[in-house]
Amino acid sequence: MDFEYSPKVKELQKRLNAFMDEYIYPNEAKFYAEVEANRARGNAWIPTVLIEELKEKARAQGLWNLFLPQSERGAGLTNLEYAPLCEIMGRALWSAEVFNCSAPDTGNMETLERYASEELKKQWLAPLLEGKIRSCFAMTEPAVASSDATNIEASIVRDGDEYVINGRKWWSSGANDPRCKVFIFMGKTDPAAEKHKQQSMIVVPRDTPGVTVLRSLPVFGYDDAPHGHGEVLFENVRVPASNILLGEGRGFEIAQGRLGPGRIHHCMRLIGLAERALEDMCRRTLTRVAFGKPVAEQTVTLERIANARILIDQARFLVLNAAHMMDTVGNKVAAKEIAMIKVAAPNMACQVIDWAIQAHGGGGVSGDFGLAYAYAQARTLRLADGPDEVHRNQIGKLELKKYK
Amino acid sequence: MDFEYSPKVKELQKRLNAFMDEYIYPNEAKFYAEVEANRARGNAWIPTVLIEELKEKARAQGLWNLFLPQSERGAGLTNLEYAPLCEIMGRALWSAEVFNCSAPDTGNMETLERYASEELKKQWLAPLLEGKIRSCFAMTEPAVASSDATNIEASIVRDGDEYVINGRKWWSSGANDPRCKVFIFMGKTDPAAEKHKQQSMIVVPRDTPGVTVLRSLPVFGYDDAPHGHGEVLFENVRVPASNILLGEGRGFEIAQGRLGPGRIHHCMRLIGLAERALEDMCRRTLTRVAFGKPVAEQTVTLERIANARILIDQARFLVLNAAHMMDTVGNKVAAKEIAMIKVAAPNMACQVIDWAIQAHGGGGVSGDFGLAYAYAQARTLRLADGPDEVHRNQIGKLELKKYK
Amino acid sequence: MDFEYSPKVKELQKRLNAFMDEYIYPNEAKFYAEVEANRARGNAWIPTVLIEELKEKARAQGLWNLFLPQSERGAGLTNLEYAPLCEIMGRALWSAEVFNCSAPDTGNMETLERYASEELKKQWLAPLLEGKIRSCFAMTEPAVASSDATNIEASIVRDGDEYVINGRKWWSSGANDPRCKVFIFMGKTDPAAEKHKQQSMIVVPRDTPGVTVLRSLPVFGYDDAPHGHGEVLFENVRVPASNILLGEGRGFEIAQGRLGPGRIHHCMRLIGLAERALEDMCRRTLTRVAFGKPVAEQTVTLERIANARILIDQARFLVLNAAHMMDTVGNKVAAKEIAMIKVAAPNMACQVIDWAIQAHGGGGVSGDFGLAYAYAQARTLRLADGPDEVHRNQIGKLELKKYK
Amino acid sequence: MDFEYSPKVKELQKRLNAFMDEYIYPNEAKFYAEVEANRARGNAWIPTVLIEELKEKARAQGLWNLFLPQSERGAGLTNLEYAPLCEIMGRALWSAEVFNCSAPDTGNMETLERYASEELKKQWLAPLLEGKIRSCFAMTEPAVASSDATNIEASIVRDGDEYVINGRKWWSSGANDPRCKVFIFMGKTDPAAEKHKQQSMIVVPRDTPGVTVLRSLPVFGYDDAPHGHGEVLFENVRVPASNILLGEGRGFEIAQGRLGPGRIHHCMRLIGLAERALEDMCRRTLTRVAFGKPVAEQTVTLERIANARILIDQARFLVLNAAHMMDTVGNKVAAKEIAMIKVAAPNMACQVIDWAIQAHGGGGVSGDFGLAYAYAQARTLRLADGPDEVHRNQIGKLELKKYK
Repeated sequence: MDFEYSPKVKELQKRLNAFMDEYIYPNEAKFYAEVEANRARGNAWIPTVLIEELKEKARAQGLWNLFLPQSERGAGLTNLEYAPLCEIMGRALWSAEVFNCSAPDTGNMETLERYASEELKKQWLAPLLEGKIRSCFAMTEPAVASSDATNIEASIVRDGDEYVINGRKWWSSGANDPRCKVFIFMGKTDPAAEKHKQQSMIVVPRDTPGVTVLRSLPVFGYDDAPHGHGEVLFENVRVPASNILLGEGRGFEIAQGRLGPGRIHHCMRLIGLAERALEDMCRRTLTRVAFGKPVAEQTVTLERIANARILIDQARFLVLNAAHMMDTVGNKVAAKEIAMIKVAAPNMACQVIDWAIQAHGGGGVSGDFGLAYAYAQARTLRLADGPDEVHRNQIGKLELKKYK
Repeated sequence: MDFEYSPKVKELQKRLNAFMDEYIYPNEAKFYAEVEANRARGNAWIPTVLIEELKEKARAQGLWNLFLPQSERGAGLTNLEYAPLCEIMGRALWSAEVFNCSAPDTGNMETLERYASEELKKQWLAPLLEGKIRSCFAMTEPAVASSDATNIEASIVRDGDEYVINGRKWWSSGANDPRCKVFIFMGKTDPAAEKHKQQSMIVVPRDTPGVTVLRSLPVFGYDDAPHGHGEVLFENVRVPASNILLGEGRGFEIAQGRLGPGRIHHCMRLIGLAERALEDMCRRTLTRVAFGKPVAEQTVTLERIANARILIDQARFLVLNAAHMMDTVGNKVAAKEIAMIKVAAPNMACQVIDWAIQAHGGGGVSGDFGLAYAYAQARTLRLADGPDEVHRNQIGKLELKKYK
Repeated sequence: MDFEYSPKVKELQKRLNAFMDEYIYPNEAKFYAEVEANRARGNAWIPTVLIEELKEKARAQGLWNLFLPQSERGAGLTNLEYAPLCEIMGRALWSAEVFNCSAPDTGNMETLERYASEELKKQWLAPLLEGKIRSCFAMTEPAVASSDATNIEASIVRDGDEYVINGRKWWSSGANDPRCKVFIFMGKTDPAAEKHKQQSMIVVPRDTPGVTVLRSLPVFGYDDAPHGHGEVLFENVRVPASNILLGEGRGFEIAQGRLGPGRIHHCMRLIGLAERALEDMCRRTLTRVAFGKPVAEQTVTLERIANARILIDQARFLVLNAAHMMDTVGNKVAAKEIAMIKVAAPNMACQVIDWAIQAHGGGGVSGDFGLAYAYAQARTLRLADGPDEVHRNQIGKLELKKYK
Repeated sequence: MDFEYSPKVKELQKRLNAFMDEYIYPNEAKFYAEVEANRARGNAWIPTVLIEELKEKARAQGLWNLFLPQSERGAGLTNLEYAPLCEIMGRALWSAEVFNCSAPDTGNMETLERYASEELKKQWLAPLLEGKIRSCFAMTEPAVASSDATNIEASIVRDGDEYVINGRKWWSSGANDPRCKVFIFMGKTDPAAEKHKQQSMIVVPRDTPGVTVLRSLPVFGYDDAPHGHGEVLFENVRVPASNILLGEGRGFEIAQGRLGPGRIHHCMRLIGLAERALEDMCRRTLTRVAFGKPVAEQTVTLERIANARILIDQARFLVLNAAHMMDTVGNKVAAKEIAMIKVAAPNMACQVIDWAIQAHGGGGVSGDFGLAYAYAQARTLRLADGPDEVHRNQIGKLELKKYK
């Protein structure tokens, strides 16, 4: 047992932090200003010039495709090695894309890498790894409680050499981005099969007739442009039968495989976000004076800072352990640990950010400090990929199994 | 002791509920659509046609200026009688204006009624009571922890027959509204006076040279248009000396007098908002099925519904008691009770709405159910008019006084 | 709506407080010393001389049998009038008996008053009202989750003119007291009947052959002597058929009727207990200095005192409202409100007392300040008469009913 | 970074678990029965025959003095290696003594090992390591908030070749044990010195004239016999000047050095205790049926089991990391981490045990399942060695330091 990062990780952290210091933090205002200017001109969904420029720099420094473990196409990092880098990227919500490490592309690339044919890989994985196109994941549906994935109603019906796809999906993040060229779509190929064999995943090119992005969904008033979250209609969308991943009825299996790494990435980014909120809280309260002394010296502030430090450090160990388990025993054995971080990290982040908001007074809920936005992101992750309650039920059942 | 509303109140509740049923709930989508259309046309700050139309109807039904106790200019209701009506209005966030009962106008009208000269009343109170103009309150400053009101730095300097006003204020809600014609401004007339005699309040016409609305502050990602929250610069703004309220050095005293009723209104509206969120949660969970049965039948859902019911009912009694005390012993004696509701109601509402969000899955954070917006409002009220911590400190000190 | 106690209640509060000041608070140490001395002599279950003496005084002052509403045998108080007196008694855990107002006798007397024959009343209610004997309630069973009352397994079988009773009960408070002369026993007369008609209640004299008090159950490390909580075995216990209350199959109905008032009494006593803990916390923190200033001046202390004040006041209104509803619409209609207080008050008390413990340092968990004992009592009431979860389920279901 | 225990640790865990299975768990009832029998005979403070017998067995198996890192007198384990063994011992509250690993002896032995003269080691450390005598730590005082160690008032005054000691101490655990032969005492040698140089520690043989054990303090009604917590009076107690540890004015320094390992031991034992409570909760809820299905299948139960699992695992990593830091960078650098576990672990344990209590119904607060007793222990550790608030203040200040 050893709680220190390896020299390899430390070196990567150093390089990534240096990049953040040189290119990300100084450009935060610029990024939001560019989006705002695009919005004012009538289209907030345009990719920013800034990110495209920074992508070049990151790639030149080898800070590119850091995710993708166990593949020669990635940077050769394990989940445990990559996780602490996610934490750093999480400190600035838009930065992951600069390193071609942003969701849902990472999950989609990992899915293609593991489950797609060579043909599909060539067509879609290659340009994604190049950062030339982006992608979308279409699973959640507005009409049903999709946290119970067996509820999903979209249909994928074989018709000769093609599949015909119908369904309405939402929370398809990135669907509004003009660079989004491909969807990975989940739906039922066989509603009569046993419960976990009904679903399949299939690759759907964005420009296939019948695919309509209906609208963008805000979270807490934020449109999250230029990325955003689409509601997408699929009407009689026809794709080649070869676009199916792994085979009919294996959608559930892919979903399980895909979600593990994604949760680790999300959770570690939330830890970075929470660290930054705590840092903001410390800095702010050291300089604001109320009732005769700095807010930082009030014991209620000290209590919260202390609790935030405890919560963050605990959550980090939990996530790193889950990454370690995924690397060593696989995400099937690590199912409980992966579910645990999905509950622990977003709740922790919501709490820490909420304290930071409170410490900033009215500024905390405004746009001036980024905290309300951070909260909206963290809060959303208590729902994305299944609400807390679903994961806690799963954890509870796995725990009870020991005693049955 | 009697926990039932009086016949007078019940009759008003009935009439107000009928109005809500006929004119407010059916127009909710229309209201937001009108604002959105204005925003799309480049100006979200335009007053809506809808509200102006509904104001006529409400006034015709005598549902007008229901606040203002102890004044023949109001509807003759005590705080305790008015409070349950606030709860009903709070169910739709934009509805209070329809009844000319929306903040900050209510607080400003009450302030003018209690502390302004007849001349000022004629000039500003009369059109406000008519719903012809709107108003603004300029107290909080971005540069200092304004929750400690003694920190406020804006200056009001006597110069002959005038006062010269300088300062930067934010969270001046409604400053963006073109109908806003007047500010009540708080600042220091005598920085050398004893701590609670330094501040004064003064009436500042919106069109006085030197008043600049710099921007609108969002809460979370919402601009709260067409009302909004302004940051306002006052540079060498000159107003007649007679615009001062009550006299130099009495700003703190006015603030205390003003804040009591405002807190009751806010808190009761939050109770209405929480009731509606609970109702949404019940309806939603009854119809969504996950893992084989309606979400409403899961015991974790029942737990939250039960806790929400307990929290709401407790908070309501607390607020009604504070209103009763304000009516009977005045807000000085009721200082502790008024501070208590300021802590209890927003925290309750945040919790209840958060549960409702969770029960709605991804829809909960979107714009489709109004819950994320409701949360943003409730969360902001943990800060507006002083953060929780300031109120709790005051309550704690008042409690300890018993034993000194 | 009126939040002030009636003149009648205020006068009773004054008299009861005067009695507490003169006879209860000054004798607290004496009471525990007498019990301790009895324990040291080998029998802690002996009734104390102190309480017997004080009973005379209380009775002489008319502070006797204050509970029992709607009966000429009681003091003529409604639940709403009696509730605030319970709060006062709750400040000293052993004081209720002095006024012949202690559980489970109050509940048993109320049960006999409402449901027993004149013969049974004469035999058992009369001496109970005189404070000459005590009684026991035998419902909960160790072998089943008794919170689901339909689980109860004890049997009551008709045999000629008698019923034959078998079962094992626990948490039969007071069974160890030599003055305990009678049990009210719940069990199944007809296991084949519909679910809520299987149970009956029957009066069982303590000295009937086959009744064995097996042991006393501690709560945390307290035996609660001289009252205590018995585990009792009933083996082929024979009582006259006329001892049945209300008739076969009506046990559930009686239980419902009985529990309402008991919950109000318990909850109000907990409010008194919490008030006293808060008072202790204030006094203690005002006098203890740490890190350069009184603990009372640390903002974390002020936060807790404030929150305690809010929690207590909220809970009190909730309980008083439930009492009011029980008086006006009956406990069937008030089922939700009665369940709500059963959840709210013990949880509130646990929280407030826990803060008080923390403020007392090591002393808080010791026997020196009574706080750990108070906590044990409050914590137990989260389970007695059904755990929180059962009540929350019921509340949730009742709330959902509105929308079905 | 590696989250697996080393082979050495795994082997020790295996051996220790085997010992627990063979000798501890099967003897739990026997242990408490022996104490109870002693209590019934008038003296609960007699050492149990059972533990003395088991000590022989543990020693024979090499499961002895496992604590004491960096000393040839110990078992050669680092803190990180010993910590997981503490967790196992923590599952049965009385078991640590069997392995000569119980507080306060471990802390006292570590203190003597690090800071005592060879002479004192020979006299006191040797028999302690043999398990022949026991010892006591006298620091906390009833008269002052001892969490601020500078408040401590006891005096240690040089008089020729002796020190004269006066003071009243409480929470001197083990003082009642007849085997307790020596105290380590903290008091002021120089009240005029700078704040952190006033205190010294000195060795006081139990039988020195002037040492009086006044009473035993209960926690939540438990006397914790045969160990217990003494209040001890020191009146003009004279000991040789050579009994001082490290030198005058270095008491604070020793306290800091001493407390680190002790916190790790306590925290890991609490993790074991919480694990066992969770196990009890799982087993119980799987077998109890309420409202038609096992309590374990109610989602509220699953939520708590899941949260318990998350809380426990998080806390364990935090404690192990602190142990690792203590081994690698020392407890001065690890001050924040050590303070963090002191807050995190007891609060976690209280929460988990509280849920387990709730899941056991009335049995949970009784003596039948050990849960109320476990709660009392965990709750006490939120106060022992400084209340949460003191540690959180320290953590908060250390965190803020980064930004000053």
